[in-house]
Amino acid sequence: MKILVDLNCDMGESFGNYKIGQDEDIVSYITSANIACGFHASDPLVMQKTIALCKDADVAPGAHPGFPDLVGFGRRQMKVQPAELTAMIIYQVGALKAFAEAAGLKLQHVKPHGAMYNMAGKDAVMADAICKGIASVDENLILLGLSGSEFEGAAKKAGIRFAREVFADRAYEEDGSLVARTKPGAMITDENESVARVIRMLKENKVTAVTGRDIEVHPDSICLHGDSPKAVLFAKKIRTALEEEGIETAPIEKVIA
Amino acid sequence: MKILVDLNCDMGESFGNYKIGQDEDIVSYITSANIACGFHASDPLVMQKTIALCKDADVAPGAHPGFPDLVGFGRRQMKVQPAELTAMIIYQVGALKAFAEAAGLKLQHVKPHGAMYNMAGKDAVMADAICKGIASVDENLILLGLSGSEFEGAAKKAGIRFAREVFADRAYEEDGSLVARTKPGAMITDENESVARVIRMLKENKVTAVTGRDIEVHPDSICLHGDSPKAVLFAKKIRTALEEEGIETAPIEKVIA
Amino acid sequence: MKILVDLNCDMGESFGNYKIGQDEDIVSYITSANIACGFHASDPLVMQKTIALCKDADVAPGAHPGFPDLVGFGRRQMKVQPAELTAMIIYQVGALKAFAEAAGLKLQHVKPHGAMYNMAGKDAVMADAICKGIASVDENLILLGLSGSEFEGAAKKAGIRFAREVFADRAYEEDGSLVARTKPGAMITDENESVARVIRMLKENKVTAVTGRDIEVHPDSICLHGDSPKAVLFAKKIRTALEEEGIETAPIEKVIA
Amino acid sequence: MKILVDLNCDMGESFGNYKIGQDEDIVSYITSANIACGFHASDPLVMQKTIALCKDADVAPGAHPGFPDLVGFGRRQMKVQPAELTAMIIYQVGALKAFAEAAGLKLQHVKPHGAMYNMAGKDAVMADAICKGIASVDENLILLGLSGSEFEGAAKKAGIRFAREVFADRAYEEDGSLVARTKPGAMITDENESVARVIRMLKENKVTAVTGRDIEVHPDSICLHGDSPKAVLFAKKIRTALEEEGIETAPIEKVIA
Repeated sequence: MKILVDLNCDMGESFGNYKIGQDEDIVSYITSANIACGFHASDPLVMQKTIALCKDADVAPGAHPGFPDLVGFGRRQMKVQPAELTAMIIYQVGALKAFAEAAGLKLQHVKPHGAMYNMAGKDAVMADAICKGIASVDENLILLGLSGSEFEGAAKKAGIRFAREVFADRAYEEDGSLVARTKPGAMITDENESVARVIRMLKENKVTAVTGRDIEVHPDSICLHGDSPKAVLFAKKIRTALEEEGIETAPIEKVIA
Repeated sequence: MKILVDLNCDMGESFGNYKIGQDEDIVSYITSANIACGFHASDPLVMQKTIALCKDADVAPGAHPGFPDLVGFGRRQMKVQPAELTAMIIYQVGALKAFAEAAGLKLQHVKPHGAMYNMAGKDAVMADAICKGIASVDENLILLGLSGSEFEGAAKKAGIRFAREVFADRAYEEDGSLVARTKPGAMITDENESVARVIRMLKENKVTAVTGRDIEVHPDSICLHGDSPKAVLFAKKIRTALEEEGIETAPIEKVIA
Repeated sequence: MKILVDLNCDMGESFGNYKIGQDEDIVSYITSANIACGFHASDPLVMQKTIALCKDADVAPGAHPGFPDLVGFGRRQMKVQPAELTAMIIYQVGALKAFAEAAGLKLQHVKPHGAMYNMAGKDAVMADAICKGIASVDENLILLGLSGSEFEGAAKKAGIRFAREVFADRAYEEDGSLVARTKPGAMITDENESVARVIRMLKENKVTAVTGRDIEVHPDSICLHGDSPKAVLFAKKIRTALEEEGIETAPIEKVIA
Repeated sequence: MKILVDLNCDMGESFGNYKIGQDEDIVSYITSANIACGFHASDPLVMQKTIALCKDADVAPGAHPGFPDLVGFGRRQMKVQPAELTAMIIYQVGALKAFAEAAGLKLQHVKPHGAMYNMAGKDAVMADAICKGIASVDENLILLGLSGSEFEGAAKKAGIRFAREVFADRAYEEDGSLVARTKPGAMITDENESVARVIRMLKENKVTAVTGRDIEVHPDSICLHGDSPKAVLFAKKIRTALEEEGIETAPIEKVIA
């Protein structure tokens, strides 16, 4: 049986004169890109250039909408009404979709960013509001979200496809949620362990939770982080390991087809 | 011979807790709406509501992109690079297009706002950058701009349609440009005179310039202002006058068909 | 025994082309103004004009800092770190202080706005962070906050004076907190009842809680709302009632002297 | 005769998650810092940290106000009214002054940033508006601006002190203005030549204009750039060269005393 998985990474988070990330390098190792839309990061020129980068590297573009909080990089919790949330999704996804289509690309997916991702993953009302926004822009868009989170049911309800992502460098609770960063053992710091966990998730559909018990996972996509100094090296490493294991990589759309 | 003209007005310029305009009232008298896109005014919720208002009133929606200058309401000149300008057009038009399509409407046109409108009307490089942005979002979008301005040639070059707008309450120079607001006689303050000028522009294709000489105009659309206290009354008045003269009103798309 | 009380109202919440409030009218009836500082509302020109208005009307100016959320008018909860909160207080208070001093006025007080006010009133860590910011700008500034809230202890800890405010149009729980707006009976809609409650708070130091039981209050200042259509009339009414009862009005600084 | 000169550099231009500059390194080589105030760059936390950095390094802090254009880093020309300009100076300088005073430091000077600096240097109305703002915050503040520009007369008119700055890496026209960056020869790319020019400006009060003719200069301060990769090395080099020539360095206040 052939195993297929997507590798996704946040991209296009620079802003004006400010540069973040190593987009030019990391783009070679991923199959889907989550592109910031100007609320928590990015600006119109950066969006346009990031789409061009994806086109050149044959990477599938997705929107990465966030809270309107540039100074907080979308990482601060904000209490917004569901209607506001739906509207801010339509706005950001619509803007990025225009850049993708202007470059002759199809927008593949949407992955909420930062605090929006974390809050909505545990809050069905927020997850619904987000999915409603995505579906109203384009019912063919795929929601990329944490495996086992509220996003899964919300996507179904809204009639859009859902792709489950897992994190190579994060520990899991027994219920499949991520161990909070504030707790000890939240991060998997040993790269070899990270790689081994990912391979096991894909081949055995299992990962050892922080409690020591195995839990089931069915990853469609692996999230890589692009902003750490070792990000590019790790991306290369995981890509190589997948190849060695005979696991193929492809954009989300093909993985969940 | 049947005369057909569009009546356009800026709409959706409220922002968060701040309200501007009399959109609910004026929407009944116009055929096309220029909807702010969040840079000089508006926010995602306001955009969504304004699209809903247009749908209810059977008014054709257009994007009204501006400079990223909320505190200056897009009325302050900004020196931006052509590439920046193109990107900010794609972003704003794309965002509004998503709201229109989410409501089942087709985005009809784009009319730049404020300082962007005034600067680009006299600057071919800026006009080109704007048209390039519009065309790359959707080649079926119509550019609405000042009759006889740089927009006309730029639209042609970019392969998009152009609709010529005239102002009921502004005086014209002999070259067809608007008399600067700082000059005496720039504004036509007598409403009956405004109405008479508009009728003559439509029936005779002529208007008397500030110098006293008649110049030729071929209006596709008349711009109404929505933010003055008497705006709604004037809209009603001009609409009635057009009807009495047997001049029909219709969205831009039909007028230039 | 002479009773002295301050009347405070939010002011200067317009922004660029957007107007909110009836500052020119309400300024005649109050003794202290809470002036927005550009984060949740206002801009530099509005701040300068509002200070001038206070100077003309002999009203004591105070800073009204809020969350950096213009589109949400500072009314949306944001989870910010204490250090961020302290810094945003210093920034906003410092900016307004400069306008006050440029006009020859002394900045009298600081009253946090909206969600910041509500959150910090119940969160000692936030209240401390705010008071730390205020004290580090000027130890003579007075914190104006809800009577009985976390602000009271935080001000003491930071070594700044505290002034207790009460609301004419809000119901109270038995513990002195405001009844949440989402609960029935949260608002006192009958103006005569509002006035009677305020008079009793001042003369008897008592108010009837929503449960029917009397609780003790020692108001230094009464908060008026400036943005409702009847705001100016109500301000006039309460001012007249106070005069009839022989209660004198004065800026906070004199009330708590 | 003892020669005394200030070395100034822009600092504190990071923003939220975005980092710009090498403040921690360059602060050791300068005597005055121009600190961004949140309009073209920076945020409250960055301002607070930059003030702390200046305090530790015994560097005199100054405000570096700019246009409200974060995405353009304050480098895009904006046409603002004089009253707006005055108000945005008061706001930004007031905010930074609060951070300086909270840390027990005195704000020494103000140097406008980017497009504001360039525009006002050639526009007496803008220069006046800026100086009016500075003087109304604190008459003891020093304006740091291009030697021979409109700032010089404007400062005098407003009753504030002026300090003349020169650029080590820029060519001069015969009238003392900088050669536009778009012209050939605008930048002095050879570091040794830069250093030699600076030494000559200080010892002989002369510099060779781009035309080949010598012009007179009386520098109070030398502007270093902090954002190039070689910035720290160059700062060290010029500091060493000054010491070898017996030229002493000190904050602006002492240089112009």
